[in-house]
Amino acid sequence: MRFFSDNAAAACPEVMDALAAANRLSTAYDGDEWSARLDSAFSTLFERDVAVLWVATGTAANALALAALCPPYGSVVCHRDAHIQNDECGAPEFYTAGAKLLLADGPGAKLTPDAVAGLLALTRNDVHQAQPRALSITNATEYGLVYSADEVGALSELCRARRLGLHMDGARFANAVARLGCSPANLTWRAGVDALSFGFVKNGGLCAEALVFFSDEHVQATRYRRKRAGHLLSKGRYLAAQILAMLEDDIWLRNARAANAGAARLAAAASGRLVHPVEANELFLHVSPDEAAMLRSQGFDFYDWGPGEARLVVSWDQSVDDVERLAAAIAAL
Amino acid sequence: MRFFSDNAAAACPEVMDALAAANRLSTAYDGDEWSARLDSAFSTLFERDVAVLWVATGTAANALALAALCPPYGSVVCHRDAHIQNDECGAPEFYTAGAKLLLADGPGAKLTPDAVAGLLALTRNDVHQAQPRALSITNATEYGLVYSADEVGALSELCRARRLGLHMDGARFANAVARLGCSPANLTWRAGVDALSFGFVKNGGLCAEALVFFSDEHVQATRYRRKRAGHLLSKGRYLAAQILAMLEDDIWLRNARAANAGAARLAAAASGRLVHPVEANELFLHVSPDEAAMLRSQGFDFYDWGPGEARLVVSWDQSVDDVERLAAAIAAL
Amino acid sequence: MRFFSDNAAAACPEVMDALAAANRLSTAYDGDEWSARLDSAFSTLFERDVAVLWVATGTAANALALAALCPPYGSVVCHRDAHIQNDECGAPEFYTAGAKLLLADGPGAKLTPDAVAGLLALTRNDVHQAQPRALSITNATEYGLVYSADEVGALSELCRARRLGLHMDGARFANAVARLGCSPANLTWRAGVDALSFGFVKNGGLCAEALVFFSDEHVQATRYRRKRAGHLLSKGRYLAAQILAMLEDDIWLRNARAANAGAARLAAAASGRLVHPVEANELFLHVSPDEAAMLRSQGFDFYDWGPGEARLVVSWDQSVDDVERLAAAIAAL
Amino acid sequence: MRFFSDNAAAACPEVMDALAAANRLSTAYDGDEWSARLDSAFSTLFERDVAVLWVATGTAANALALAALCPPYGSVVCHRDAHIQNDECGAPEFYTAGAKLLLADGPGAKLTPDAVAGLLALTRNDVHQAQPRALSITNATEYGLVYSADEVGALSELCRARRLGLHMDGARFANAVARLGCSPANLTWRAGVDALSFGFVKNGGLCAEALVFFSDEHVQATRYRRKRAGHLLSKGRYLAAQILAMLEDDIWLRNARAANAGAARLAAAASGRLVHPVEANELFLHVSPDEAAMLRSQGFDFYDWGPGEARLVVSWDQSVDDVERLAAAIAAL
Repeated sequence: MRFFSDNAAAACPEVMDALAAANRLSTAYDGDEWSARLDSAFSTLFERDVAVLWVATGTAANALALAALCPPYGSVVCHRDAHIQNDECGAPEFYTAGAKLLLADGPGAKLTPDAVAGLLALTRNDVHQAQPRALSITNATEYGLVYSADEVGALSELCRARRLGLHMDGARFANAVARLGCSPANLTWRAGVDALSFGFVKNGGLCAEALVFFSDEHVQATRYRRKRAGHLLSKGRYLAAQILAMLEDDIWLRNARAANAGAARLAAAASGRLVHPVEANELFLHVSPDEAAMLRSQGFDFYDWGPGEARLVVSWDQSVDDVERLAAAIAAL
Repeated sequence: MRFFSDNAAAACPEVMDALAAANRLSTAYDGDEWSARLDSAFSTLFERDVAVLWVATGTAANALALAALCPPYGSVVCHRDAHIQNDECGAPEFYTAGAKLLLADGPGAKLTPDAVAGLLALTRNDVHQAQPRALSITNATEYGLVYSADEVGALSELCRARRLGLHMDGARFANAVARLGCSPANLTWRAGVDALSFGFVKNGGLCAEALVFFSDEHVQATRYRRKRAGHLLSKGRYLAAQILAMLEDDIWLRNARAANAGAARLAAAASGRLVHPVEANELFLHVSPDEAAMLRSQGFDFYDWGPGEARLVVSWDQSVDDVERLAAAIAAL
Repeated sequence: MRFFSDNAAAACPEVMDALAAANRLSTAYDGDEWSARLDSAFSTLFERDVAVLWVATGTAANALALAALCPPYGSVVCHRDAHIQNDECGAPEFYTAGAKLLLADGPGAKLTPDAVAGLLALTRNDVHQAQPRALSITNATEYGLVYSADEVGALSELCRARRLGLHMDGARFANAVARLGCSPANLTWRAGVDALSFGFVKNGGLCAEALVFFSDEHVQATRYRRKRAGHLLSKGRYLAAQILAMLEDDIWLRNARAANAGAARLAAAASGRLVHPVEANELFLHVSPDEAAMLRSQGFDFYDWGPGEARLVVSWDQSVDDVERLAAAIAAL
Repeated sequence: MRFFSDNAAAACPEVMDALAAANRLSTAYDGDEWSARLDSAFSTLFERDVAVLWVATGTAANALALAALCPPYGSVVCHRDAHIQNDECGAPEFYTAGAKLLLADGPGAKLTPDAVAGLLALTRNDVHQAQPRALSITNATEYGLVYSADEVGALSELCRARRLGLHMDGARFANAVARLGCSPANLTWRAGVDALSFGFVKNGGLCAEALVFFSDEHVQATRYRRKRAGHLLSKGRYLAAQILAMLEDDIWLRNARAANAGAARLAAAASGRLVHPVEANELFLHVSPDEAAMLRSQGFDFYDWGPGEARLVVSWDQSVDDVERLAAAIAAL
């Protein structure tokens, strides 16, 4: 019973069906009918016109978004534990042609306006320092916390005042929306987000993420950047079809809710051990090496996360039985 | 009846089956069992140890290969009509951090040692000019010609003498091997190729290409480059599975032979109109605008390719009936 | 008697005096009084407000200008023999983060609207090709020809129609202005030039060139790019002082006229041998190997320039006697 | 009386004389006789064969060194207060094509093996993180502390164990050597340094720094990188001549000793106010706003450095009288 990562989960049946349905001769790249429907589908979801590019990975989505928002001589503020800083091997630096990441702190990989403002105050306004041009936040965060629409709005107010673009790494955006029960619009552009990496892969997709721009300004340039990064798949319809399938009937929310519910169940069983509140589908637990070994001996797999801590991730398709067994095992420690 | 591009074709049933078979919880990125089998499968095929990285596009494979072979201050010799020059929006420049492409000429997008040597002679050996560090050839070429193993060997001899790495863009490598009936080994490393972009997408894959290195020197660096380019898919097993499915039972050859055969059938019908010999699955025909219109009025779709020329591509799954109908239509012009 | 290159000439006395005059404690970088006077001095010269950045080399000026005008996913049209293509080891590619150079042809390294338009017509307007975003011309050209204001204007008209920025590599801008007798304004912004690399080093400077922007749009970004390229010298006043010294009393024109006059004298003596008309300070002569050897045996140094050709460059400080001696020697061949 | 920065000081007479002596026709770029003597002069100084490239700025020297030592997918460990992190507007990221800087802590901008090892331990050895490939230390540090040869050696031992290249930013290398009284060899290659940015500008140069490589491995590549960065000045002899002039008769040490002595004098007068020990030519003092104002009212200029602190830098040519006056003024606060 593997609780390693939602990256390891299967693709959901609707996605597999969509691949099969799209498996016929069409037009190459993004000239197909599925790709053509993307903007419209997301515009409906977000209650306004948006422009959407599919890509195969969240890293590509993030790096393209940052390249759109930040010039080579600029810098991007993010949390010290952000995925873009720690888990993308310098993709932001590669795509932006050498912009810097400025690292802010805050519990649970979550940023506050104060933390960001404090970091910005350290940068002199002269040509010797790369000037901040963008803020990137992750929602849900790398530690499973969720920014509310108000929290995003407070950050975006600072961004507007300081002329920073605002990017949201939404690798687990679905989990955040599912948690908050808010509209995708409220959590993004109405709260001031300029670009969203809308993740599908962790949530039941196979190989498709959506990069959503809430203004036209950066879209055309990003189309060229995507191509030159080798991310314009020649049979792009298979990516568009996955995404459309997950938007239809709110499959993306169904999947995220299932994962969140599993995590909530585990959190309830592990209440004294939580390193961070559990607001999405990830748990970080205080467990001794012996306790970790005991869980593993019962067939539960997960990552150690620093000394005395473990990370467990519930995927969209984790069975209720498995979750219950793990909950019981944790409670019994 | 669309003869636009093999990029538009469907994925073959074996690939779709492999996706379904891989659709279960596994390990993320390339830690899965399918990815783990890739090196071995290709080592068998190539009759020696090779290292293989999957990527989602041929552009990514090409650009990663060139970044491995050429430093930012170097240059890559290729044909003026090469895909890397004309159809990748500067991906080689992006991945190499600014290396230059030096453009050589030759009929049918095919290079000869003389053409390459002539171009190399134009570069002064001083710090004011980016020094040639790699040669990239496309097999089959962008105009559907095929380099024989001997022809590749002659180019590689020049490369060795001039210390250039040799990259083969094999977007249609399968069609070249099918045409030549030679072993993949003879057409690549035995002929001096250092890195091969082994294409599967045009040949019945869905979204998986293989970047094959014939020496260990560049592999580890390329793993990092792939990640930072956003090309390390989190569910990479679906890519590996596609490729393995096409290697098994030589599906890749079966598909390529079908496409080549269709093109040969059309070539026979169009013998007086051929711009280039037809050696793979592409045809370039002399047709007047009226003739092109007539073909289109009969339901055949294809690209105009400069004034008075048309490009037709036969895909792996083009039906024999469609090919016969088109052959008849061409013959009747 | 060396006629190799104006790069090898000495600095003129006014420049050396200016260095001595500036040799006192001041403010670092470009905060000094000399740098502060640059914009004003050039605005007077160009009869409008301009913004100017000093740099140490023409390559830096060119590359910064192109980075301002062309994004990484764009391309720059230039002549096949342009300095930026052949003598800067990929500086434009480095500074633009991988833009491509598109090479046009024309006699004497000079471009016409037809040549440029013909090249542009080869680029498809799709994401698979880097889209042209700038045109760079060299005035005087690498072969010593001069673009008139009308010729520049005709090119700029095309640029405006195609939305290309227009850069002038003026490594020998002084020689062009001296030849034409026109105003610097007429030859640049009034003819549609967006950015000018105004060369001083070949013309009697020591290590200072001026990058002149005729609109504010790109200036601030370029200040950051200059710094991050390591081109913001900490004692920048020595560069500004050189430039100011050469602007004062039109020393830059005096020097250029002297060089042009020497070249004209040689051209008159070599009228049957000229490969290109001599319009600035460079001559390209048809000379046999024996003739070249004979000249060298008389103490004249110069470069061979392809088989049967020689390049001779007259510097600002070449003595009239040396020029006369060489003229006589050429005439006597 | 300005104690802002040694960047603002004049060039020393020997440098000005050398410029005048070099002011005659020669060979362009680095083909001149002065440039040709550089390797030999530095090889004598460093008691072994070294290869040296002149550049115009310390930022260029640092960035070229780091590009030699660290690939785009690597990272460079440095102090959080390092010049390369805070004052070069991303030059390392630009030249390395996007490598990351990893920031370590330590008093006075000085690193210890423990601090570096602690930071290295945070990087996972997988493709998701840019792997550390170089360590860069500044000697004297940005806060005026000096690494001894033993301290450098201890760091280099760690570098060897972890396969990191070792770069020394020696913008004030002269001040460090003057302070330590050791041989340049002992403080660099004998202690494991791979590349040294040997600063001359702050120490009485006009616009010349030396990039010294202690192994041949990276030299040739760096020559190309220098050119493509626009740092191969066409009249490079003026840079070489400056450096040679300062090496001769140990002018570089004379100047550094003068600056150090001035700072030591001030330190003695300010002993209760020192934020850091004064080991080179910089002082950081605790001063209240009133005290700072009082000093300024007496004609002393300097930078505030955070709340309640001031930075004063003594230049090579600061007069003894000025220093004494300032010492008295500080003592009288």
